[in-house]
Order: sequence, then C-alpha cells, then structure tokens
Amino acid sequence: MIRVVAFGGGHGLSASLRALRAMRDDLKLDITAVVTVADDGGSSGRLRAERGSLPPGDLRQALAALAGDEQALTAELLQHRFAGVDPLAGHTVGNLMLVGLMELLGDPVAALDHAAGLVDACGRVLPMTRTALEIEAQVLVDGEVVTVRGQHEVAVTPGDVREVRLLPVSPPACAEVLEAVGVADWLVFGPGSWFTSVIPHLLVPELRRAIVASDARRLVALNLAAEKETAGLSHADHLAALMSYMPELRVDVVLADDRAVGDPGPVERAAAALGARLVLAPVAVDEDTPRHDPAALAAALQPILGSPGARSTRGGRHDGDDSRGQG
Amino acid sequence: MIRVVAFGGGHGLSASLRALRAMRDDLKLDITAVVTVADDGGSSGRLRAERGSLPPGDLRQALAALAGDEQALTAELLQHRFAGVDPLAGHTVGNLMLVGLMELLGDPVAALDHAAGLVDACGRVLPMTRTALEIEAQVLVDGEVVTVRGQHEVAVTPGDVREVRLLPVSPPACAEVLEAVGVADWLVFGPGSWFTSVIPHLLVPELRRAIVASDARRLVALNLAAEKETAGLSHADHLAALMSYMPELRVDVVLADDRAVGDPGPVERAAAALGARLVLAPVAVDEDTPRHDPAALAAALQPILGSPGARSTRGGRHDGDDSRGQG
Repeated sequence: MIRVVAFGGGHGLSASLRALRAMRDDLKLDITAVVTVADDGGSSGRLRAERGSLPPGDLRQALAALAGDEQALTAELLQHRFAGVDPLAGHTVGNLMLVGLMELLGDPVAALDHAAGLVDACGRVLPMTRTALEIEAQVLVDGEVVTVRGQHEVAVTPGDVREVRLLPVSPPACAEVLEAVGVADWLVFGPGSWFTSVIPHLLVPELRRAIVASDARRLVALNLAAEKETAGLSHADHLAALMSYMPELRVDVVLADDRAVGDPGPVERAAAALGARLVLAPVAVDEDTPRHDPAALAAALQPILGSPGARSTRGGRHDGDDSRGQG
Repeated sequence: MIRVVAFGGGHGLSASLRALRAMRDDLKLDITAVVTVADDGGSSGRLRAERGSLPPGDLRQALAALAGDEQALTAELLQHRFAGVDPLAGHTVGNLMLVGLMELLGDPVAALDHAAGLVDACGRVLPMTRTALEIEAQVLVDGEVVTVRGQHEVAVTPGDVREVRLLPVSPPACAEVLEAVGVADWLVFGPGSWFTSVIPHLLVPELRRAIVASDARRLVALNLAAEKETAGLSHADHLAALMSYMPELRVDVVLADDRAVGDPGPVERAAAALGARLVLAPVAVDEDTPRHDPAALAAALQPILGSPGARSTRGGRHDGDDSRGQG
C-alpha cells in the first residue's frame, strides 16, 4: 500500500484526486485529501457568514472527486447547484448536506467521514484545520502595497502578492491530518491557486512541522497557467514562493506540463534548489485549455508514485504496513 | 411475502410506517408508502413556491421512518432542521436533498428511489401524484361557510370541514402507486390529518378506481384525538367522512385506541357500515399523549396483517409470488 496525502483547495485538488483515484487500484493507494478551509466566496462564503460553518465547498469537491462509481449519482447530487434567484440559488446540495452533518455531529471530521461513506469515497477528506480561517495578503496593486482580506478577494485581486498570512496566525492543525502526514509515503502539493490553496498549508505551524518531520517523499504539481493572484509569476517563481514561505521544505519531484513550461531551464534550476528533479509531461486537457486532465495527470503520476526504485531510496520504513504506528 | 401499501401524509403516516418497519422481518412485509403531495406550509411550502418543487416534507418523513438501522445517521441528517434566522432556517437537509434529486433526475419517483437507497429504506416511498396539488375546503366557521385554500390553511382553520377537494380535480395518479395497489395484500389508511392527508388519496380518480379494483384487504387506523380540521368530529364521524367521499369503499378492519374511543358502540356501528370489524387496542404513547406509539401500533397490527386465517378468506390470489403480474 502507498499512502498519499494530497494538499490543495478547490479545482486543482479535485484534479489531483481524480488522478489518484484513477491509479488507486493499480498502486493500492491509501488517499487522504487535505483541504484549505479559508474560502469566503460564493455559497461557502454565505454559509460561513450566515451559519458560522466551516466553508464546505472545497471539501465537497474533494468528496465528489473521490466518489465510487456506484455512487456517481450521489456525487452528482452533492455537486448539483441550485439555479434561479431564490434563497437557495447558488448553493450546492452537497454544501448544505455538509453543513447539516457538521451541525448534527458537532465535528467536521466525523461529518466528512459520514459523507465519504455516502459517496463510497476511495479515500478520506480532511480539513486543514477544524475551524475556518481567513487569508490576508499584502498585494502590490498599481505600484502600491495594499492589504487584501479574504481568500476570495485575494484570489481575484490582480496584482503581485507580496505576502500571505492566515488569521488567526497559528491555528491548531486537524489532528487526523498530522497523523496522515506522519505515516505518509508521498505528500502531494498542488496544483491549485498558489497563495490561497497551496501555500496556506505551509502556514499552519503544526502542519509545517509535521511535513518537515515526515519521511514521505514530496511532489509539487505546478499549475498550467497563472491566475489573477499569480499574474506575472513564472513557474520558477511558484517554486521560489514555496521556498520563501518554508525554507526548510525539501521536495523530491516537481511535475509540470511541458508545453506550459516552455524553456525548462529556469524551472529546472528552481526545482533543484528545493532538492527536486523536474518531470515534464503533457498533463493539460489540451493546448488551449489550462486545466489538468485527470487521466493525463494519472499517466504522469503513476510511474513516479509507483516506482519501487524511487520508494526504496527512502529506506525500509515504508516497506511494511507495521510502520503505521511510527509516524 | 405480504405486500402492504400505506396511505397518509406526515406524522400519522410516519407512525404507521415505523410500526410496519418493526414487524417487517417477522411478516416478510413488502412496504410501499403513498404520500399526499398537497403540503404548502413551512419548508415544503417555501420550496414549492420558490422552486416549483413537489413538496418534499412528508416524503422525507416517510423515508426517515423506513430507514435501515445502519443508515440511522443519514436518516437523522434528512430530518435535521436548520435553526436560526438565515435563509436556510426552517428547511430540513432532507427536503433540500429531495428537491436537488428531483431537479437532477427530472422525476420524483427516480429521486425517491435513490434517496431510499441512501437511507437503506426497507420499502418504497411514492408520491400520490407526480405533480403538486392544492387542497380546497368549504369550512363552516362561526356559522358561515367559507372557502379555505391550501393544505396548511385547511389544517389549521378551526371549523367544520364540509367539503374538501383537490385542485386540479382529476390529477393523474402516480403509475407506480397504481401498480402497487394492484398487487397489494393490504391497504392501510391513516392515521393522519383526516381531510388533508387521508381523504385526498380517495379524491384522485385513478387511485380511487385502483383501490376499488384491488383484491387487497383494507385497514383504517383511526386518530387518537381530533385536530383543528376535525374539531367536533367523533371517531364514528371520521369513518362516515370516508364513506361520504367514497361510498363504494369497503373496509375489513378498523383499528382504534380503546381509551381514545370510550364507548365503542357508535364507532363499531360506523365500522360495520363500511363492512369492517372494529379492533380496539392501546396504540397511544400514553394516556396523555395523543400520538401513536410505533411499537404499540406494531403489536396491534401484526396479528391483523399476519393472520393466515384473515388472509385466506380472500382466496388464493395472494398465496404465491406469481400473483404480482395480475394486478
């Protein structure tokens, strides 16, 4: 069994989870998704503001990505978004189910585990922290540094993100996430909104320590195209941003789309600075669509995650199931 | 196998379904719940008005009543009602799930079958008709006959209901209900709000014909106490009301609570007028609580539904499983 913990937020994490799901049987993967809980836009933002709920949207997307074939319709129900202009409009059924389960059970992890059962998920979905967070960024807009508060606002503000931080600054990590990181064989970061979905995981002190302490190999999957929050950042800059937030981070593999990267020189050097080799592969839906294709991503990831050679370089710790207790 | 079709609306139907569920394994029951879809109050009323949905509340309650032990938490989720004052407040999670499923699948029966799977229901829940109905009543209020429109309004108007009708007056019945009635061994009417949950089933022309044509035995479970809509009506009057709306209705057994009935004479004679014998049994939660206790109701129903003697009087039609195609 290979234990993979995938970190991210919305669509990017969904792509990596669908890829992991596709190769799950071949590699006997044990999958844990760790989701940022700082979303404050759309349906999640309303539920958070109106009901004090953990923002459910990214958690729901992760559950749908891991859903079993026999519960494909239930996964579709989770993703069904009410149209129209009435008070329900804009909410997805899954968001409302998750809020209901969290209210009913009083604990997001128990709620997510039950929801995972309903969709027969081939993995576990966990929140990065048990309480909702806020993201605050210093953004250079038109030559002036402004403070932008809120994940949604940071994600849509065009400008150069100079610094991003969590509020509160030192939230306790979800204990189940720390456990999963402790026994993981692979930690996968990205793809996803870099400052609002990927880097936040590195800003939770307990989680950061667990990542450093873990014997797992680490893979960073780079984005295909810049988003508003990363306008002007090259692929190499993305890796440099990881390093600047977590200088102690070591990475084994950086995966990028060959066409998106163009000249591989700079990103190869940035990867090397993190201790990583660069793997280039076609992982986009197509040349004009800057979205990861789960099947292509799976084809690229499978030889990396599954290579016995690669895993054996880490020593014997991951060779038996008895190692679970050691993390 | 004994095929039981139970007709009703909200809480009353829920009580009879919980009773049927309790005796299901002993009697090898095949349970179908048929639910009025005229509710226009509360969460159901809002969803109906705002999203053009079939009112989901009574359907949800029936699903929860039939839920399997292993999905008790999912049933609880369906029943979880959002508190507070925000736009979700007052809705149950199950109502929103059912509306989502109906929108997604475009058909209430397919939606209910999927929802039944999610709660591992030990029976099928069907709507009386595939489209929402309205109930209109002529009510004698303070000596004057007024027209009251809407199930909720009829249910809460104190007065003497003189006539109740459906709008539209001849809605097509749900085809799956007609099939279930055709092959049923028992049809169970009530308990429940008499004019708004029980009698409406007799007002759908196709359903009324199917009930008359069915070889099934019929049981009427009387209410424990009068509600606003039936203030002033005795138990015997309830039976007389059934007869007045459907003179061709024949009944085999009338079940009533012995303490609630008091002098059994009048109700015994009213039952006899329908062709039925009266069975008195303690079916209330307790002397002061006019609610059916599912376990007590099961104890009263089981010997009636399960008696081979009783069933054999109807001839050989129900003795084998091959009879299913004949209805």
